[in-house]
Amino acid sequence: MIDARITLVTLGVVDLERSARFYEAIGWRRTAAGNEKVVFLQGEGIVLSLFGQADLAADAGLDAAEPLPRFRGITLAINLASEAETDRLFALAVTAGAEPVKPPQAVFWGGYSGYFADPDGHFWELAHNPFFALDAAGRLDLLTPNEEPA
Amino acid sequence: MIDARITLVTLGVVDLERSARFYEAIGWRRTAAGNEKVVFLQGEGIVLSLFGQADLAADAGLDAAEPLPRFRGITLAINLASEAETDRLFALAVTAGAEPVKPPQAVFWGGYSGYFADPDGHFWELAHNPFFALDAAGRLDLLTPNEEPA
Repeated sequence: MIDARITLVTLGVVDLERSARFYEAIGWRRTAAGNEKVVFLQGEGIVLSLFGQADLAADAGLDAAEPLPRFRGITLAINLASEAETDRLFALAVTAGAEPVKPPQAVFWGGYSGYFADPDGHFWELAHNPFFALDAAGRLDLLTPNEEPA
Repeated sequence: MIDARITLVTLGVVDLERSARFYEAIGWRRTAAGNEKVVFLQGEGIVLSLFGQADLAADAGLDAAEPLPRFRGITLAINLASEAETDRLFALAVTAGAEPVKPPQAVFWGGYSGYFADPDGHFWELAHNPFFALDAAGRLDLLTPNEEPA
């Protein structure tokens, strides 16, 4: 087992139920592991945890008094197999309550990418990168050469 | 292929080379996919992307003028197989330049957890949760019942 992995991402949220419903609507599966303070949603090989903003800050010994800025220095990405898949998931997220920040579009590096913000302003990128191959589970493996654009 | 996944996490950084060296030191493998503006590091089933703060903000159409707050509303976690593994990786990260935010310790929910901040202040939690089983690749699967603490 290698250390280089991310088993779980925790998002600070204002309304646990609202956020849980949003992520369920875009494909994450709510598990029985949570309680009234935390929701765990299972994805492919990764868990998304939703936790109150103040609770999350306190867990790391931080003060959550300041409002979060719009740009938080980090984005989460889902690479998709085609431009059509990217458009489909983007539309699904917006229907579920996401804010459309940048509609999927051709970008300078040769791919197709868009951003939405979740109900708490966490940024997700949806992208089709023709130079990056995805395995059967949708994972990126950049160590195995990808001979030609998919 | 399901949509509920995170293929890549992008961290905004100030010094690309400093951050790349930090992540390499804690087990991520730098790939040939990057260029002078972006570094892609391969982990188990996920890619970590390092990108200039301003570049990342601009990519999402945001303004990166404000300094980032200490609490950014999101944490990344690596679940580990034991308290000893948690201590080991935490020490390795601190040696590589992480800020020790919360040394690994027994926490109220029955596990063992600590936080460090990377060179740009991104928060990582390292945790051993005896109620969550890890598969052979170190992934969490919360849909498969875990009968007894590991």
